[in-house]
Amino acid sequence: MTLSPQDTGLPVLADSVRLADDGVHILDRRVFPFERTWVHARTAEEVARAIEDMVTQSSGPYFATLWGMVLAAREIAGGPSARERMGEAGRRFVATRPTNDQPRKAVGWVLAALDADPGGDLVEAALAGARAGDEDYRRRSRELGEAAAALLPDEARVLTHCWGDLYLVGMVQAALARGKRPVFFCTETRPYLQGARLTAETLAEMGVDTTLVTDGMGASLFSEGRVDALVTASDRVTLDGHVINKVGTLQLAVAAQAFGVPFHALCHAPDRGSPTGSDVPIEYRDGDEVLHALGTRTATERVKGLYPAFDVTPPRFVTSIATDRGVFAPERVGEYWKEQG
Amino acid sequence: MTLSPQDTGLPVLADSVRLADDGVHILDRRVFPFERTWVHARTAEEVARAIEDMVTQSSGPYFATLWGMVLAAREIAGGPSARERMGEAGRRFVATRPTNDQPRKAVGWVLAALDADPGGDLVEAALAGARAGDEDYRRRSRELGEAAAALLPDEARVLTHCWGDLYLVGMVQAALARGKRPVFFCTETRPYLQGARLTAETLAEMGVDTTLVTDGMGASLFSEGRVDALVTASDRVTLDGHVINKVGTLQLAVAAQAFGVPFHALCHAPDRGSPTGSDVPIEYRDGDEVLHALGTRTATERVKGLYPAFDVTPPRFVTSIATDRGVFAPERVGEYWKEQG
Repeated sequence: MTLSPQDTGLPVLADSVRLADDGVHILDRRVFPFERTWVHARTAEEVARAIEDMVTQSSGPYFATLWGMVLAAREIAGGPSARERMGEAGRRFVATRPTNDQPRKAVGWVLAALDADPGGDLVEAALAGARAGDEDYRRRSRELGEAAAALLPDEARVLTHCWGDLYLVGMVQAALARGKRPVFFCTETRPYLQGARLTAETLAEMGVDTTLVTDGMGASLFSEGRVDALVTASDRVTLDGHVINKVGTLQLAVAAQAFGVPFHALCHAPDRGSPTGSDVPIEYRDGDEVLHALGTRTATERVKGLYPAFDVTPPRFVTSIATDRGVFAPERVGEYWKEQG
Repeated sequence: MTLSPQDTGLPVLADSVRLADDGVHILDRRVFPFERTWVHARTAEEVARAIEDMVTQSSGPYFATLWGMVLAAREIAGGPSARERMGEAGRRFVATRPTNDQPRKAVGWVLAALDADPGGDLVEAALAGARAGDEDYRRRSRELGEAAAALLPDEARVLTHCWGDLYLVGMVQAALARGKRPVFFCTETRPYLQGARLTAETLAEMGVDTTLVTDGMGASLFSEGRVDALVTASDRVTLDGHVINKVGTLQLAVAAQAFGVPFHALCHAPDRGSPTGSDVPIEYRDGDEVLHALGTRTATERVKGLYPAFDVTPPRFVTSIATDRGVFAPERVGEYWKEQG
């Protein structure tokens, strides 16, 4: 099925999970941008399976879980033990991605709305919770985007790595709204090529001049004075300013510092559960992914592959962290929680 | 045609251009290691075209030119103006790769042998010159390999980038001969994947434990203490210790230094024609190569690609330079020429 990406004025990846009367439609990131195919999940269980099958990634599982929980409410509505069964549905979504916190957060929004209105209509309450979760994520991404955009010069040449998702979209929207004209270099981000497939396409869709480079070229660009800022999203920021993000971020951050280029990391908020970098276990994915490019082998069977999915950039290599409460020096990002928390 | 790689006891890429009675046989690196196909060049002109068509690369054009000049001598032998025509043949080979110095050096060996024996048999003299050029390159690679191997601990965990060719083979042979047991991480080296296709395969062929990583993972490995040394070949070393090598080397060198890992660069000798890094123009190749992996597009037509083929690592990020006259600190590598030159 085809849905028009013009619906919202957003690039399609920023609006890639949609609730409809007939279920949830999820843009298939496995084939994007070469195909713009939407997976139609008719039931909550089909949404959960789509998440497990990697139809969507990054913030996608968050939105898919929000709307999948609404499908669960539709299925359960009127039945006995509705609240308990919604809890079961939530546990099903949380189990889709054991190492990704997004489904858990999305489930929280919906269950909180049910608990706030125990006598109300189940579907209405679930929908309200999902909408609140959707709006919260988007608002916070806009706010950190505003904070990050203020760090960029007017015609900034920005290098980004992997796929910054709504954080990056928020920053670019804010920069454009301020009349800034950023241009971007994107690393391709091997092995999964998120930069080539998701980031570069989305920036081009937003009308931003976009140049793809390989993951090894950042230092060369920095040393030649071709980049004004390195900007990446983060999977997690610790309270003492370590930035956990897609592997390759550390190498770029070190190179940026060596050549005097600032590194700005984006997050909604630092993680209160992670005091420092050593608290964050690094996920090792299947090394075979490194031995392939777009499904084709790059090396023979004689060779092993190694795939640490993330790396940890210590605060000494980070210039600033842009959050939904403004910009912090990395060693002071823990104050995010003291100020208003 | 198939030639046995067991002929010499070397990995096949270290003996991948061979003179025979029926011409020159060149291992096709465009399809290696998935296919081991040899291109049969029957004439000097066919050898030149094979070089232009990128059948071989790195030191391959050097050896192809040596043996191609022998074919030229066979074609010219007995004819008039033989020396002049050999000069023409040489210019044809030099023109195959305007930015690669290897064919010029190889032509020099053969013409010098002709000029040393002006009344002698043309084919014999050309063959003697080509053999001398072959032996010189191999001897120097063995010698720098000995020097480099002495820098490695006994069970060194080495990260290498791109394809170090006979320099790397020389170092590994020397290390193994000393009873050392190195293990290697190889970057895949996008966009052309020399690391995945050439380096990893050759190391595995030499019996070395070999793990492939992406070009962005070096810093992650360094920061976790998983690597004892970064070792790369070089396309050129300047007299003041700048290392010009495949793009991505700079980024790894900067990261190695940040985490206390030594970086050893390999070369026969620093380039007397290059006093410093700014003397070396960086070649920009077709950016479209960055938009493809193994011939398949990685991004859509909306996106541009940028491909600086090499980068320049300043001496402050280099620990040592291993040459055929031993190891130098980078800022003292110019003394290579003072000592014996």
